[in-house]
Amino acid sequence: MNAEIIAVGSELLLGQIVNTNAKFLSTSLAEMGVNVFHHTVVGDNPQRLKKTIEIAEKRADLIIFTGGLGPTKDDLTKETIANHLGKKLVTDQDALTSIEAYFHKVNRQMTENNKKQALVLEGATVLPNEFGMAPGMFIQNQNHFYMLLPGPPFEMEPMFSKYGRRAILKKMDKREHIESRVMRFFGIGEAQLETEIESIIVGQSNPTVAPYASDGECTLRITAKHESSAEALKMIEEMEKSIKERVGEFCYGYDETTLMAETVKTLKNAGLTIATAESLTAGMFAAEMASISGVSAILKGGVVCYSNEAKEKLVKVKKETLDKYGAVSKECAAELAENIRVILDSDIGISFTGVAGPDSLEGKEAGTIWIGISVKHHPVKTFLLSLASNRNSNRLRTVKYGCHYLMREIGLNSGN
Amino acid sequence: MNAEIIAVGSELLLGQIVNTNAKFLSTSLAEMGVNVFHHTVVGDNPQRLKKTIEIAEKRADLIIFTGGLGPTKDDLTKETIANHLGKKLVTDQDALTSIEAYFHKVNRQMTENNKKQALVLEGATVLPNEFGMAPGMFIQNQNHFYMLLPGPPFEMEPMFSKYGRRAILKKMDKREHIESRVMRFFGIGEAQLETEIESIIVGQSNPTVAPYASDGECTLRITAKHESSAEALKMIEEMEKSIKERVGEFCYGYDETTLMAETVKTLKNAGLTIATAESLTAGMFAAEMASISGVSAILKGGVVCYSNEAKEKLVKVKKETLDKYGAVSKECAAELAENIRVILDSDIGISFTGVAGPDSLEGKEAGTIWIGISVKHHPVKTFLLSLASNRNSNRLRTVKYGCHYLMREIGLNSGN
Repeated sequence: MNAEIIAVGSELLLGQIVNTNAKFLSTSLAEMGVNVFHHTVVGDNPQRLKKTIEIAEKRADLIIFTGGLGPTKDDLTKETIANHLGKKLVTDQDALTSIEAYFHKVNRQMTENNKKQALVLEGATVLPNEFGMAPGMFIQNQNHFYMLLPGPPFEMEPMFSKYGRRAILKKMDKREHIESRVMRFFGIGEAQLETEIESIIVGQSNPTVAPYASDGECTLRITAKHESSAEALKMIEEMEKSIKERVGEFCYGYDETTLMAETVKTLKNAGLTIATAESLTAGMFAAEMASISGVSAILKGGVVCYSNEAKEKLVKVKKETLDKYGAVSKECAAELAENIRVILDSDIGISFTGVAGPDSLEGKEAGTIWIGISVKHHPVKTFLLSLASNRNSNRLRTVKYGCHYLMREIGLNSGN
Repeated sequence: MNAEIIAVGSELLLGQIVNTNAKFLSTSLAEMGVNVFHHTVVGDNPQRLKKTIEIAEKRADLIIFTGGLGPTKDDLTKETIANHLGKKLVTDQDALTSIEAYFHKVNRQMTENNKKQALVLEGATVLPNEFGMAPGMFIQNQNHFYMLLPGPPFEMEPMFSKYGRRAILKKMDKREHIESRVMRFFGIGEAQLETEIESIIVGQSNPTVAPYASDGECTLRITAKHESSAEALKMIEEMEKSIKERVGEFCYGYDETTLMAETVKTLKNAGLTIATAESLTAGMFAAEMASISGVSAILKGGVVCYSNEAKEKLVKVKKETLDKYGAVSKECAAELAENIRVILDSDIGISFTGVAGPDSLEGKEAGTIWIGISVKHHPVKTFLLSLASNRNSNRLRTVKYGCHYLMREIGLNSGN
């Protein structure tokens, strides 16, 4: 099956927003085994949209539209498609009920044009919108399939993942289920990861294993096809097991998660509190931790010890340590981690000190970074990083290494 | 003039990257007065690219290509266009020289396929690539214009802004210069901003004033056209002056800048040091400040006082204050700002305490936030925010308000 993705919206042509929907759908479709040969963006103009559909019909079996399903006069996608296919628009009672319920909930008057959002193409499978009002649609006409999805990514993405994907797979090959899982890695480079698992994945066509790298992390997407969904999942599990035998120590999580989310989970599960002393990262580690709701149970607080004065005054780092070894040193990192843990009476203290760049500091090159981790009742440990990126990438990377070493030290990821 | 933007690259169709080039070019073209009616993405496939060009020629005068100019076999854009237009590819000596110089500089052997990058369409205007090897091209053929740009945004964007834009404007209307300036606002909503300046901009066609809002900030882009560039700039300045008379107090900067960059600049110019006490934002303010190189001259450090224990131990907030007024209070914000300034002996202390959400705290609703600012020799001031967004957007917005009030207090933005 070949697909074309058509985004409808003048705001895209004016450069006001980026077409992230095309990326999301392309990734999903690639995983499902659907070829995407074209993306097109067209404005809120029925004549140009109609011509765009005619062109797409010549080169694709499946045409997916995003945008133009809203209540205003600008929103013309389903009207144009109905006209093009010679179909009527009919009110979908479920959609109308949920639109009415929405207005009731926010205690606002529902205007007449909102009813327009409940209109669907006659004969279409309706895709429920769990995060907005306009429902999606999927319809076959002669030898083409048409899927209409809303424009806002937070409505479109869950709709496609939950309903759209399944509707397409059903038409593709009824005998086959496709399952996939993403393994997330940190602390190993993409090239090394590929090398380590090469002999497992070479020549593999089912399941497939696709590596991807960004922001210092790597992922492997394992995709398996089978008549039985359970069997496909079993194939994924077996492949995952083989991969873990080789590089399991670097795998920190699955599917949609982040290193920090896993770190917070690890701390919460272990019932451990934490305090931070951040020089290089200047609060970035704590701020990212606090982006997760409910973190006050584990994060006691910390210090942004950007200057040596702050290191001495707020974290009681000895003047001799700073004079003898400098702020960017194993010794300073150790004292920071140990002292902040004691000062805030937490179970764990973590520290970051180093040279963000672009300039060197204390005779140490940009990218020289020490992380200290102090766990109550255990000797403090330090970790040296030598990063080679720019200032802000070095700082972001350092926060990730902090999560990585912290999870290791807590030892709750042992056995993974 | 009507344009179509064609991105060439299978990585876009696989969903590995987002087509940010189309957004960038669309914004620029809109500003130049060029209509963009379609974006298309096509893979590294000469047959499909050729068909895509034929379709574009039926609906656009100017076709802009991004991507496919590199040295590998996948890169086929210029070859396909040359073939389609019946033009030869010839070596551009300047491009070849700069490619050779690049390899000399990085001390690597230049392989034969790199010479391919110096090939250009015969008769094309060559657009120099100051951030990479593949040059861009602009060529007219019958009644169409074709512009070829490299795919990586850090090569494409400066090439277009410096050379591509000018080449197109030259063909559009030789008598006219277009100049523009972006004014940046914080602390005023988009709707209010539009209302305040409505009578100035209504019916205005030269200069035009285009508002845009995102992430709690608003911008106004003023664009003026005139035979003389100096005259166009003068028109912009006059318009800017009228706007400032009404809403100048909210304008914090021009063109590419951020609230934090302006705050750091303000502090540096005034020779003032700062210390932070962050509960709600948990280090985000300091971390963002430290993302700017050279900030160690002004940022002494601070405290992430996420728990009440940290507020007492690290910032000496009185227990009575916390018991009587709570952590989310004017009194707590004032003590935090004042105390951290004294503890770290800085000129300014800033504090953030509040309810990020989703849950309420101490009987205060999510979004209730206090900012404290203590300037040496001045009484401490506090500011109450009532934000209505989600947890992380509330925290980000709070950091922006911190910058906003800080710049006001320093008083260096007076007269703006």
